[in-house]
Amino acid sequence: MSVYLHDIPLPEAQARFKKALEEARLWGVLGAESIPLDENALGRVTAEPVWAKISSPHYHASAMDGFAVRAIATNGALPSQPITLEIGGEAEYVDTGDPLPNWANAVIPIENVESLDELGKLTNEIRTPVSIRIRASVAPWSHIRPLGEDIVTTQLVLPAGHILRPVDLGAIAAAGHSEINVARKPKVAILPTGTELVPIGSPLRAGDILEYNSLVLAAKIRAMGGTATRYPITKDDFDLICQQVQEAARDHDLILLNAGSSAGAEDFSAKVVEKLGSLLVHGVAVRPGHPVILGVINRQAEFENHKSNEKFDSSYASTVLRSTPREWTPIIGVPGYPVSAALTIDIFVEPLIAQWLGRRKNELEIASATLTRKLVSPPGDDDYVRVTVGKVGDKLLAAPLARGAGVITSLVQADGLALIPRGTQGVEAGASIKVHLYRSKTEIEKTIFCIGSHDLTLDLISQFLAQRGRRLSSANVGSQGGLIALRREEAHLAGSHLLNPETGEYNISYIRQYMPDQPVKVVALVGRDQGLMVKRGNPKKIRSLHDLTNPEVQFVNRQRGAGTRVLLDYQLKLMTIPADHIVGYSHEEYTHLGVAAAIASGRADCGLGIAAAAQALDLEFIPLFQEQYDLVIPKQYAEGDLLAPLFELLAESRFQKAVSQLPGYDVSVMGRIILED
Amino acid sequence: MSVYLHDIPLPEAQARFKKALEEARLWGVLGAESIPLDENALGRVTAEPVWAKISSPHYHASAMDGFAVRAIATNGALPSQPITLEIGGEAEYVDTGDPLPNWANAVIPIENVESLDELGKLTNEIRTPVSIRIRASVAPWSHIRPLGEDIVTTQLVLPAGHILRPVDLGAIAAAGHSEINVARKPKVAILPTGTELVPIGSPLRAGDILEYNSLVLAAKIRAMGGTATRYPITKDDFDLICQQVQEAARDHDLILLNAGSSAGAEDFSAKVVEKLGSLLVHGVAVRPGHPVILGVINRQAEFENHKSNEKFDSSYASTVLRSTPREWTPIIGVPGYPVSAALTIDIFVEPLIAQWLGRRKNELEIASATLTRKLVSPPGDDDYVRVTVGKVGDKLLAAPLARGAGVITSLVQADGLALIPRGTQGVEAGASIKVHLYRSKTEIEKTIFCIGSHDLTLDLISQFLAQRGRRLSSANVGSQGGLIALRREEAHLAGSHLLNPETGEYNISYIRQYMPDQPVKVVALVGRDQGLMVKRGNPKKIRSLHDLTNPEVQFVNRQRGAGTRVLLDYQLKLMTIPADHIVGYSHEEYTHLGVAAAIASGRADCGLGIAAAAQALDLEFIPLFQEQYDLVIPKQYAEGDLLAPLFELLAESRFQKAVSQLPGYDVSVMGRIILED
Repeated sequence: MSVYLHDIPLPEAQARFKKALEEARLWGVLGAESIPLDENALGRVTAEPVWAKISSPHYHASAMDGFAVRAIATNGALPSQPITLEIGGEAEYVDTGDPLPNWANAVIPIENVESLDELGKLTNEIRTPVSIRIRASVAPWSHIRPLGEDIVTTQLVLPAGHILRPVDLGAIAAAGHSEINVARKPKVAILPTGTELVPIGSPLRAGDILEYNSLVLAAKIRAMGGTATRYPITKDDFDLICQQVQEAARDHDLILLNAGSSAGAEDFSAKVVEKLGSLLVHGVAVRPGHPVILGVINRQAEFENHKSNEKFDSSYASTVLRSTPREWTPIIGVPGYPVSAALTIDIFVEPLIAQWLGRRKNELEIASATLTRKLVSPPGDDDYVRVTVGKVGDKLLAAPLARGAGVITSLVQADGLALIPRGTQGVEAGASIKVHLYRSKTEIEKTIFCIGSHDLTLDLISQFLAQRGRRLSSANVGSQGGLIALRREEAHLAGSHLLNPETGEYNISYIRQYMPDQPVKVVALVGRDQGLMVKRGNPKKIRSLHDLTNPEVQFVNRQRGAGTRVLLDYQLKLMTIPADHIVGYSHEEYTHLGVAAAIASGRADCGLGIAAAAQALDLEFIPLFQEQYDLVIPKQYAEGDLLAPLFELLAESRFQKAVSQLPGYDVSVMGRIILED
Repeated sequence: MSVYLHDIPLPEAQARFKKALEEARLWGVLGAESIPLDENALGRVTAEPVWAKISSPHYHASAMDGFAVRAIATNGALPSQPITLEIGGEAEYVDTGDPLPNWANAVIPIENVESLDELGKLTNEIRTPVSIRIRASVAPWSHIRPLGEDIVTTQLVLPAGHILRPVDLGAIAAAGHSEINVARKPKVAILPTGTELVPIGSPLRAGDILEYNSLVLAAKIRAMGGTATRYPITKDDFDLICQQVQEAARDHDLILLNAGSSAGAEDFSAKVVEKLGSLLVHGVAVRPGHPVILGVINRQAEFENHKSNEKFDSSYASTVLRSTPREWTPIIGVPGYPVSAALTIDIFVEPLIAQWLGRRKNELEIASATLTRKLVSPPGDDDYVRVTVGKVGDKLLAAPLARGAGVITSLVQADGLALIPRGTQGVEAGASIKVHLYRSKTEIEKTIFCIGSHDLTLDLISQFLAQRGRRLSSANVGSQGGLIALRREEAHLAGSHLLNPETGEYNISYIRQYMPDQPVKVVALVGRDQGLMVKRGNPKKIRSLHDLTNPEVQFVNRQRGAGTRVLLDYQLKLMTIPADHIVGYSHEEYTHLGVAAAIASGRADCGLGIAAAAQALDLEFIPLFQEQYDLVIPKQYAEGDLLAPLFELLAESRFQKAVSQLPGYDVSVMGRIILED
């Protein structure tokens, strides 16, 4: 089946786009404007070099409050041998910044001067004394700011392409300017399309998708130095989209057509570009974000013309553009998934905006980090993987985040982006990879790397730690995964709730098994209710695990190995309930929320899980057991500075109160030391 | 004399200010406001944690365009053994994002499906086929985005105190919000005072000072997340300043009273604060910026009351503030020198704005660097030294910039700030120091470190290199200083114009003397005119060096060791003119511009120098000699990537043309290799 787009390598896509823009004379600074030199100039980009029109200071200025003198007249002054200078011919009072009298070549600061006329009360009668006495000589040009000390007329103050910072504005003013020539801001139109889209804040039905890409894109454009127009949502209607694109092309420098860039039944973007201009690229070998479209739209053409079947030359743009320069507006078909959309902007739009503003491209710091788990990657694509980055011991670690292109929180949580280049099938755990950092290393060094089983309490810890100068980065790999990560020295601590079904005890035996030689500290975090989730009103009247054997009751289980599954099997054994009497025991879901969703959708009547999952999907919760959720911390980190604020937190009543307000949490155990090697 | 303020250590000053603000209940988040979730939220700071109101996706969604199926029904499908599924009961077409039918638990992407009804032309008739054929099985939950994959209702999306980035806005929208609670922007009043001040762009007389501090301060406040009100310039008039401060106190959160913070005759700031509130600190042991004032102003008091001699309790603020919380507006008396003003804002205002917004303080990356020359520092002060930073060979180097508090260009050029702490008298050259970096290391690694004699051409090189991804950082230490720096491997290249008075040859003999064992490449940059500067109209009719012996002509010389002085002495010897026949031969200035200024002010009639200096002060220039200005480059850098764009530049006609347009420059020699070891 050949309905799908054809991915080409990223450098080829970029080169095609660049070539077309060069030929359309759209590769370079778009234009300049003169703006007043005020605080609105902050962040703008100089369109030309700034040369000094005047010197600063523009005269020899006194650098102190004091007396202007001839240096030679002070020669020989000593503590025991003062010299007296007459006001008028030999000394003259000057304030800081006053011009030096023509005859003088040095200034004596007021605090080094004695008055013969009660100079102690200098302040307002300063000019009245008749003479001063000094007890030290001064060298020529002492305490003088010579003409041009800061800026010399004609010198370069700032180069073109410079992003203006506060001090730059001062230097430009000091150099005699009151206006500044800056690059015009590129105008970008953002067109969200899709019949399934609803605006931010809408009530949602299944199938509705909140349209927030245009917000993210507009904010990115603004952060890059452009201005964005967010169009209202357009339905999947070819003619409507064509109309909007044509209109946007007339008064914008770039069009971002969001979604519809793939090759599905209602993906019109490629056809729109073909109809109104030239399609340069459809599909780039990058993940996420491969169904990207690059093209140009004829700025002046009337949409009506196209409707009347007039043929449009959509052959390779280089020819088309050369004949009619400046009549084209570039367009980018941006994929619909939020991560794809964001990365598309970073890869294709940022360099373009940089060109148009004449500034350098944004370049992230690159660091080498150790990958915490194996990454598999499609060999044909440049694969961008969001990672959290933390410094554990001496190692900088990169832990991959959720890779789904729909998971915008992976970008929120990301400390950086790792690129698995084309031609690579994947990277092994423990390998060194290059990470483009979103955060400074200083910030990363204040990051507590937590791994293991996720719990809502960790969100609260994160929130409270942020006020204490620490950042909590937590990855959910399950309790056992957390202990394994600790063994590999890949985290500062792990959250764990592993029940030993032989003893009914939590965590200790697993710690000894997985980390036999590592001294640890284990601290209780919370007691957490596990219980049965059922529909509101509990229509099947379920009260305990015994009710699961009712053949009318459809159960939904967690996967083998999950802590909740271990707990269920342990309790069934205690209660001597045979698993094969439970309808749906083999129906497995992989998360608490998956279980809750199965119940909410009616596919099951009940399942075991935590209260928060029930609350999230508006289910009823029947608490049955309390399980123990501990923090496992290798000794060397337990004693370090990094985690000190965490221990403070566990003892803080404000924090305990916040946790106890979560449904199904018991904080009475919080901070209790379970084990300390 | 005890007119001067008393400096106290920085931590003590900060502690006093913090204590007073805490007692006035002004240490913490000022307030919150709910704003719409749009691109204007960019850069705002969350005032409370953002918890998810909904899950995302809020239903099990298809992750691909394809067919929803029961995974179990696909078991056994093989390339050689296809399975056929009926549309309706066994398979249902879904677009990306469509909800999964209740009965299904997997999606097969459209590209993995064969149609029995010409599915090749799928696009619009996609829902019409009767059945599909597949040749591979799918696992349960394949190509599905399960409910809550991205965000789970009730989870923490962002903590409080988070600065909003584009992706954050998307995540907040995805979590079901259409508004966001952010910290209110602190309102800062900036009051420039000083009779000598004139607004930006004014024509200048000696003694006038351009008032641009308020611009730099306002831009800094904006960059920190506050809003600034710039008041017009107020004269040095105690009552007027009191009136303005009192007015500003009513509707601002902070007042920055610029200049007048010292203890001179017209420094009213401390008295204003004492009169209208409480003076907490006058003088802090930091350089630059020690005459800083910290205090609080009574927000509600009427200025008239104070005038009528009602006594105001200016005892230590802790008592005063406790009795009347929220009635105080903090005030900072900011020193007048631009560097002092900027640093005062960074040291005292940034942490306060951070508190008020609830965000973390800005923290610069810290790097260890080798100091290129000795720094002397007052032992009683924390001394902040602006430095340029470059990587030369394997070493990160920090070269101190001009230390004068009036030199704003030192902040423009600075790559970082080195702190010489209290109790230290100075740091030796070659010592390791900590530098707080203004630029990323990536940027610093693209910096060409140039040292030696300054020339205007270097400004043009800087400008042209900026377009080629390089930054030129040049320090002016004279030609010999440059060669010495190269010997110490402290620069990538040096600009030099050292005449050997024995041979008339430039540079080579000095290079061999100063860098005997280092292979170098020497490239001619320009031929540069040296000549006599005289007043417009040349009233003394000076034509050549012979005219200097005219007793009517007052000469002004350069200091011993200067290249221009060497040139003068060489030419006098060639022309057998005795130096002691020249009136003013012993009158020495230290820069080209110093010589020009002496002539412009009438203290001298002529001096030897370069055309640009004459042009800067509107003097006439009589060219006499051409000197050779070369670039000296150690071999290892001459061959590296970093300098490649520089060599390209020397061959570029556009660059040569730009240089040739400077007065007194000859580019015919540009790029000629003088020496290559």
